[in-house]
Amino acid sequence: MIEFAQFGAGRIGAIHAATLARSEGARLRYVVDVNARAAQLLADRHGAKAVDRDAAMGDPKVGAVVIASSTDTHADLAIAAARAGKAIFCEKPIDLSLARVDACLKEVEKARVPMLVGFNRRFDPSFKALRDRLGAGEVGTLEQVIITSRDPGLPPLEYLKVSGGQFRDMTIHDFDMARWLLGEEPVELYATGSCLVDPKVGQLGDVDSVMVVMRTASGKLAHINNSRRAVYGYDQRIEVLGSKGMLRAGNRTPTTVERAGDDWVASDKPLHFFLERYAEAYVAEMDHFIDSVNAGKAPAVGARDGRQALVLAEAALQSMKTGAAVKPA
Amino acid sequence: MIEFAQFGAGRIGAIHAATLARSEGARLRYVVDVNARAAQLLADRHGAKAVDRDAAMGDPKVGAVVIASSTDTHADLAIAAARAGKAIFCEKPIDLSLARVDACLKEVEKARVPMLVGFNRRFDPSFKALRDRLGAGEVGTLEQVIITSRDPGLPPLEYLKVSGGQFRDMTIHDFDMARWLLGEEPVELYATGSCLVDPKVGQLGDVDSVMVVMRTASGKLAHINNSRRAVYGYDQRIEVLGSKGMLRAGNRTPTTVERAGDDWVASDKPLHFFLERYAEAYVAEMDHFIDSVNAGKAPAVGARDGRQALVLAEAALQSMKTGAAVKPA
Amino acid sequence: MIEFAQFGAGRIGAIHAATLARSEGARLRYVVDVNARAAQLLADRHGAKAVDRDAAMGDPKVGAVVIASSTDTHADLAIAAARAGKAIFCEKPIDLSLARVDACLKEVEKARVPMLVGFNRRFDPSFKALRDRLGAGEVGTLEQVIITSRDPGLPPLEYLKVSGGQFRDMTIHDFDMARWLLGEEPVELYATGSCLVDPKVGQLGDVDSVMVVMRTASGKLAHINNSRRAVYGYDQRIEVLGSKGMLRAGNRTPTTVERAGDDWVASDKPLHFFLERYAEAYVAEMDHFIDSVNAGKAPAVGARDGRQALVLAEAALQSMKTGAAVKPA
Amino acid sequence: MIEFAQFGAGRIGAIHAATLARSEGARLRYVVDVNARAAQLLADRHGAKAVDRDAAMGDPKVGAVVIASSTDTHADLAIAAARAGKAIFCEKPIDLSLARVDACLKEVEKARVPMLVGFNRRFDPSFKALRDRLGAGEVGTLEQVIITSRDPGLPPLEYLKVSGGQFRDMTIHDFDMARWLLGEEPVELYATGSCLVDPKVGQLGDVDSVMVVMRTASGKLAHINNSRRAVYGYDQRIEVLGSKGMLRAGNRTPTTVERAGDDWVASDKPLHFFLERYAEAYVAEMDHFIDSVNAGKAPAVGARDGRQALVLAEAALQSMKTGAAVKPA
Repeated sequence: MIEFAQFGAGRIGAIHAATLARSEGARLRYVVDVNARAAQLLADRHGAKAVDRDAAMGDPKVGAVVIASSTDTHADLAIAAARAGKAIFCEKPIDLSLARVDACLKEVEKARVPMLVGFNRRFDPSFKALRDRLGAGEVGTLEQVIITSRDPGLPPLEYLKVSGGQFRDMTIHDFDMARWLLGEEPVELYATGSCLVDPKVGQLGDVDSVMVVMRTASGKLAHINNSRRAVYGYDQRIEVLGSKGMLRAGNRTPTTVERAGDDWVASDKPLHFFLERYAEAYVAEMDHFIDSVNAGKAPAVGARDGRQALVLAEAALQSMKTGAAVKPA
Repeated sequence: MIEFAQFGAGRIGAIHAATLARSEGARLRYVVDVNARAAQLLADRHGAKAVDRDAAMGDPKVGAVVIASSTDTHADLAIAAARAGKAIFCEKPIDLSLARVDACLKEVEKARVPMLVGFNRRFDPSFKALRDRLGAGEVGTLEQVIITSRDPGLPPLEYLKVSGGQFRDMTIHDFDMARWLLGEEPVELYATGSCLVDPKVGQLGDVDSVMVVMRTASGKLAHINNSRRAVYGYDQRIEVLGSKGMLRAGNRTPTTVERAGDDWVASDKPLHFFLERYAEAYVAEMDHFIDSVNAGKAPAVGARDGRQALVLAEAALQSMKTGAAVKPA
Repeated sequence: MIEFAQFGAGRIGAIHAATLARSEGARLRYVVDVNARAAQLLADRHGAKAVDRDAAMGDPKVGAVVIASSTDTHADLAIAAARAGKAIFCEKPIDLSLARVDACLKEVEKARVPMLVGFNRRFDPSFKALRDRLGAGEVGTLEQVIITSRDPGLPPLEYLKVSGGQFRDMTIHDFDMARWLLGEEPVELYATGSCLVDPKVGQLGDVDSVMVVMRTASGKLAHINNSRRAVYGYDQRIEVLGSKGMLRAGNRTPTTVERAGDDWVASDKPLHFFLERYAEAYVAEMDHFIDSVNAGKAPAVGARDGRQALVLAEAALQSMKTGAAVKPA
Repeated sequence: MIEFAQFGAGRIGAIHAATLARSEGARLRYVVDVNARAAQLLADRHGAKAVDRDAAMGDPKVGAVVIASSTDTHADLAIAAARAGKAIFCEKPIDLSLARVDACLKEVEKARVPMLVGFNRRFDPSFKALRDRLGAGEVGTLEQVIITSRDPGLPPLEYLKVSGGQFRDMTIHDFDMARWLLGEEPVELYATGSCLVDPKVGQLGDVDSVMVVMRTASGKLAHINNSRRAVYGYDQRIEVLGSKGMLRAGNRTPTTVERAGDDWVASDKPLHFFLERYAEAYVAEMDHFIDSVNAGKAPAVGARDGRQALVLAEAALQSMKTGAAVKPA
């Protein structure tokens, strides 16, 4: 039974707090948020206390932290937690700057504390089953990965301004998926993008529609396509081609109802967005973290994974800017 | 905020207790079970007390009961709860004897307490959406209902012996679905059945494979097919044909993964059984009960519905025995 | 190489003539139709001659006939062909009267000529594959058959008046499917029906919406549901449940295109009607007949099958009229 | 009614000859093939004459030619036909050398004869419906195109040696699809590839697994992935994302049968290869050519389209060799 301090009482914070509250291996002790009222409400709901950062970090009974605050605070909190010897569950990205990520990793590795980076999609039941079956050899040797990943609509421009841009904010999840499935690091990466959804995105120097191709040393190929706007909902699909077949994981729908009319046969759109689609994944991810820490094992998706996804995002940005393929560092 | 006493700490009892425990409109105060240890464990898990029947029924703070004990206790507990003025959530069936059901209904109606009978399928998101859309006229006037309902495998013979038989135990759910969708009472019913899964079922005087056809006064037609064994999982599908189209609700699967191999394209079987398939429905059903009681409104599926489904089950039994169509009383 | 005389130059006649024309094992010699112009046009298109009935029946070079004229002429033509020693391809039904069917069968059996009755659905690639796989034991022992069979819309009332009624005209195809799949004759049959599509159908003493349940001696169960109007197209589906699984064959669509929009995901309706859905089946059926005759083997669906489907249709009519289950003669 | 001379009596030649033979707007007069016996057989089957090239080209009654001989003969035959004033149906590619393609186009344009290049996929009912619906604005403005195109297995190495390589031989079809859907020329193209299916392909200096990304001037993005081996059959899918939704066209299957077993639910693999998948497309393509010539209109897919697809194939080859994105000439 580990006691937790959670930083961040927003949308994702609420999900993690609820998971902690009903876990038998964890207890939520503290909630910390710059918005004191939000912290208090969330703490009250789960029998925790709203305290400030130092109180939470300083309490030796706290064995683990959940970092679900704004991106710019992740690295500092992770470093503080590492120094305090606490296990770390950190929402992605660790930071938008590779230098700061590396500084953070150094501290975490020095402190030898377990750290999980919140690539929640690895815990989606369908994606996890796909990878397990790929690993079990059901389609032979992997040859190609195709990842389709589209948001239902553009986030607020205020959000986009501080997001780090398309690759660091959105594609980073897909880079992690690609690495996880390829089982090898990409050695060549090409990315291109356009501003097709809203010209205001372009005015920020960003893009909203991108395509990426990567190749590994053994010749495996991966493609990612992203759009900030799929009006039909959150589109999250993965396909892998192997020497003995193909595995695909598609979207989930609210219901299985279909209507056959005199015009067409209509079925449900995919679930709306990440809170709906990845509801089970968020719980499985936190359960995995709690189990790992209780068992003294490293979580399945660690700080290095967080770093490498950012390396690919940086490479994509460079490729798009130069119009040339690049070798990710 | 209503306080609950729950009777029955078995599989379904555990589900209802968990739902009550995390509801904001309810509090689980007591758990009662003939198995004292099971009652204690469940009570402990949710901060309730394990007490005996009289203590629970006698406490005026208890505003509602959940009856999830063995079938033969349902009617007695419902009568006791009615007399004590408590709202009643009663698992189906109320009783296997129509006479006892009627006696129970008389008391419940006399006491004017709300009573919900646990036809959980009405709360399945897909079935509910189908009915809502039917009600909204999306396929015009209803003409035909086809219900496919198959269990993954035969229950223990010990269970079957006291189950009341195929129609009262299993088809009763489908009779409720048919009534709910038809919006009219059947006036003619034909049923036939066979013992195809296991001859031991036949030795009990029961059947394991049945087909039913019903017709309402306005000519609407309904078909039900049941089997105690669909090796591919719990098969729960509904199809309605209307003057302007068809609506269908199918099964759900654990994942969306499919494998295309050199032999065929393979996808997941349906979810295994009712605990998996109707997980959301059990929660929605209890939430509806809590909301209804808190709002002082009658639950959407009441004691009369429990009675009428049993009437159809009795008619089916008679039809199968006589080989003739019957008019349900 | 057999030479054919074809009776009937209508819609189905045109299909059969085209199949004969491009077959390497057959040659279309004559076309006969009361509509001389239609006969001439069809004959011209395929290098045949339009002649009268006696010329066609009297030519000893004609080894086989296709009877695709109006239903009331089937039995007479089949008897004449049998007496002339010609192989017979006869559209269903042989006749609407069981007595006349029996008279026809007597002559055919006496003449020992091969006769195929046009239950085209047996040659549909999907239905045929389903039955082959059932026969190969892929789902163990057969337990239940569910047949859904709906026309896209009501035929002209003039047609209905002489059609023989719902069971003899439309359900007869499904009775044949059921027999073909069950591999046993039904020993109990219950049918009910309503006039829901158009009250004019009821004024003719007919129904447009029916449900049937049948049971065989070994306890296998079969259900048929029919409607004269599925606004979404020709709905032709078969499902069989066995001890080791289920097989289903569904509809085909014009294209595989689907549109995901902000409302729903829309895909094609089923193919419109029998000419589209069973295009391949008509060709395969005639090819089978030609092959059978050339090889001196009995066709897979014979005169007895035509009779037995009519027996079930008669039983259904009686059951619907009396409201009681009946034992098919 | 145009009279045709057909060059090539192989697999595709047989398909085109059969289509011509049953068309009401065309007549097959001559078949020419270096294999005299093949020419004779095909000619006999359709009432044509097997002659040599000069006889066919020299006959003024011949209004159109079908060029379905080996690739290295296409350009010469097309030039000869153009000079003889005949309409040209030419299998793709016109030639593997852009210089020779340009020389051929010059002659064709000078002669002002209609020419169709055999990009059969444009006539696939599903792909055609997808494009028609895209053009009708069903998903708003086009943003992204994703083309998946995989062969069921590696062709003979002898074939590969003279094929012109992956991009000119196989991807060229997808380049045509991309151009057809984008409605704009790509201005940037990146391609990469690997030899994953068989090292012998690599020894020929070729690849068997490729990914391409293209961008148009207005920012539209397109992705193509190819493999020479999808063990589950011929995988031909197209997806387009627009501002108001997505359109997808998938594979077709031999039947609609699915089996639900105790392991999984299994359905048919896609149709095996191009002869099965594009059977309807080959007929529609030839019908379109015949109609166009008879109506004096230019075919929908012309010589320029053949050239531009080759331009993209050349660009892809250059990109793969240099590891850099290129601007197609």
